[in-house]
Amino acid sequence: MTDVAVTDVAVAGGGLVGLAVAWRAARRGLSVTVVDDAPGAGASAAAAGMLAPVTEAGYREEPLLRLGLDSLARWPAFAAELEAAAGTPVGLRTAGTLVVGFDEDDVRELGVLHAFQRELGLAAHRLTPREARRREPALATRVRGGLLVEGDHSVDGRAVHAALLAAARAAGVVLVRDRVAGVVVDGDRATGLRLASGGAVAAGATVLALGARSGDLPGVPPLPVRPVKGQVLRLAGAAGLLEGTVRALVRGRQVYLVPYGGDRLVVGATSEDRGFDARVTAGGVHDLLHDAIDVVPEVTELELTETLARWRPGTPDNAPLLGPSSLPGLVLATGHHRNGVLLTPVTAEVTAELLATGALPAVAAPFTADRFERSPAWS
Amino acid sequence: MTDVAVTDVAVAGGGLVGLAVAWRAARRGLSVTVVDDAPGAGASAAAAGMLAPVTEAGYREEPLLRLGLDSLARWPAFAAELEAAAGTPVGLRTAGTLVVGFDEDDVRELGVLHAFQRELGLAAHRLTPREARRREPALATRVRGGLLVEGDHSVDGRAVHAALLAAARAAGVVLVRDRVAGVVVDGDRATGLRLASGGAVAAGATVLALGARSGDLPGVPPLPVRPVKGQVLRLAGAAGLLEGTVRALVRGRQVYLVPYGGDRLVVGATSEDRGFDARVTAGGVHDLLHDAIDVVPEVTELELTETLARWRPGTPDNAPLLGPSSLPGLVLATGHHRNGVLLTPVTAEVTAELLATGALPAVAAPFTADRFERSPAWS
Repeated sequence: MTDVAVTDVAVAGGGLVGLAVAWRAARRGLSVTVVDDAPGAGASAAAAGMLAPVTEAGYREEPLLRLGLDSLARWPAFAAELEAAAGTPVGLRTAGTLVVGFDEDDVRELGVLHAFQRELGLAAHRLTPREARRREPALATRVRGGLLVEGDHSVDGRAVHAALLAAARAAGVVLVRDRVAGVVVDGDRATGLRLASGGAVAAGATVLALGARSGDLPGVPPLPVRPVKGQVLRLAGAAGLLEGTVRALVRGRQVYLVPYGGDRLVVGATSEDRGFDARVTAGGVHDLLHDAIDVVPEVTELELTETLARWRPGTPDNAPLLGPSSLPGLVLATGHHRNGVLLTPVTAEVTAELLATGALPAVAAPFTADRFERSPAWS
Repeated sequence: MTDVAVTDVAVAGGGLVGLAVAWRAARRGLSVTVVDDAPGAGASAAAAGMLAPVTEAGYREEPLLRLGLDSLARWPAFAAELEAAAGTPVGLRTAGTLVVGFDEDDVRELGVLHAFQRELGLAAHRLTPREARRREPALATRVRGGLLVEGDHSVDGRAVHAALLAAARAAGVVLVRDRVAGVVVDGDRATGLRLASGGAVAAGATVLALGARSGDLPGVPPLPVRPVKGQVLRLAGAAGLLEGTVRALVRGRQVYLVPYGGDRLVVGATSEDRGFDARVTAGGVHDLLHDAIDVVPEVTELELTETLARWRPGTPDNAPLLGPSSLPGLVLATGHHRNGVLLTPVTAEVTAELLATGALPAVAAPFTADRFERSPAWS
């Protein structure tokens, strides 16, 4: 095996998380190499860019909620610093998020969600159908009620990725365009990354940021990360259509519409346990269009510019895997499931701190992989 | 202006019709040059390939029906000769066509269609829901009735186009990859084609086969050809799903599912008066998927591999423009609207006959452009 590089930190995966970790680590003075054969072509390409810890809040997921709120609070400074470093915008929108219910059962569900949010002290308030349409006049008249979460925002995920590529390069990060074939283990320690083309990157520390592919990489101890397929659509011609993100429950099914880039809209997302199935299906596209049109009828007239299927890195508790792993030298930054964009700043910053100082910040402590060994329910 | 070629026949348009005319004319001993910057990228790329004069039969369109039946009768020999000349298959399927009605109103419509077909002496017979599902077990149980037309078939339109390209080349046809900028008029006569890049093709006869773009080409007398937008989908994974073409009326809306290529399906088509609007829209794709899934629920599981919008060359009476035009030297082979694939053999053969002998066969006589001057209703 020929080493192609020796570096302080080798990062497996050049998606949003991997690049953000690399950028932050490089800014801490570390030499960093990122390995990815197609940076940004994985889940980062599909992400709608919601920064929505409150509307994503689920029962028994309070630790994840707190991490999400922490990362959301970091986003404005992170975005500003990133835009300054890259010289390109990342499309941070702070217009808030409106959740609507399509029929009476859906509105009842919103009531349950709202009660839970209030119990947790989160800012959200109910809107009548008329109030909901005052905020978003494009809503269907059939929509029965809403819930406004002024603190849940969005970014343009692809713009963030492009900016991270530029910022990382400017900070001296080396990008190796090759497929990660495995982690090199020397004795009991990770010492870098093996490349599909044959070489290797020798590193003092190795970061695993391969998203859904993190679960079964050769050399890595088995991790409870599984692919959760999501299909998303991109539409054009939506200038002025929506004020902010619209999420909806439509006959019990979730759909979201996230405006970006002036006249664009992301509509997502299915959630399917189908392994690494990359097919965009007739049923997936149909359901997304059907629900989106039910909620915002003018969607009918928009141009369908893209359909895409990717895999979220799902974990048993829907929370990420951060910090040291059971393999010395291997640091985890994966398992972000539905929250990759939201959790990018906190992941990057705690991981860079760990790489630079050896200490994992307290905010990340609940998310180390050994939590699954402690809890027999996940085994 | 520099002539790039001198030829007996210059054909504007390398879609199915233009190439078939060129091939047939070359086989008659004429030198032929076809001009197209992207042969097969127009309506030919979207066509589902139905050879369906009976299920397409419309009121007051008996002349078109007769032309369609004439061309359908030519298809087996045309396909065999084309496959032999090109060495590639064209996917002629002779499994017939099943038309189904989704609700009671749709089935009543089928009854009206069937009465009309019988009046014209066409072969079609009614099926009960059970009989319809015996023929096509993938049909939804909700389907209320059917009409089997054993004589309406299909081909793989893209395979036909590829074969025509090969056969035309083998027959000596020259293909100029340039955009047709206009017809060259010398005195009172068409003398060839002007190219977008600046040159020209000088020709004894010029054939206009530009589909929806035929209506307003510089140098051509105005023709009543308008673009009728159609959106279509292509799906994969449908091996064994359908026996033959399935057409359906779903709550008054038409959809068709045409199997081809082993495991593929074309689902079409919207019909929209929007000028040269090339956008695939959320509403168009939604409606096609919705209706197709209503009729054949397993469509849900298929891979959506392509969405496409193109323009049919519509005419006031839905029939093509064939034969000589009011401009001497200019021959028409356009305006095929919904029937381009079906009418390709008869169009090619009557046009080649006209080019070789100066006489238009009787079958094409009702379709010369002067019919619109004769009838004030179209003016």
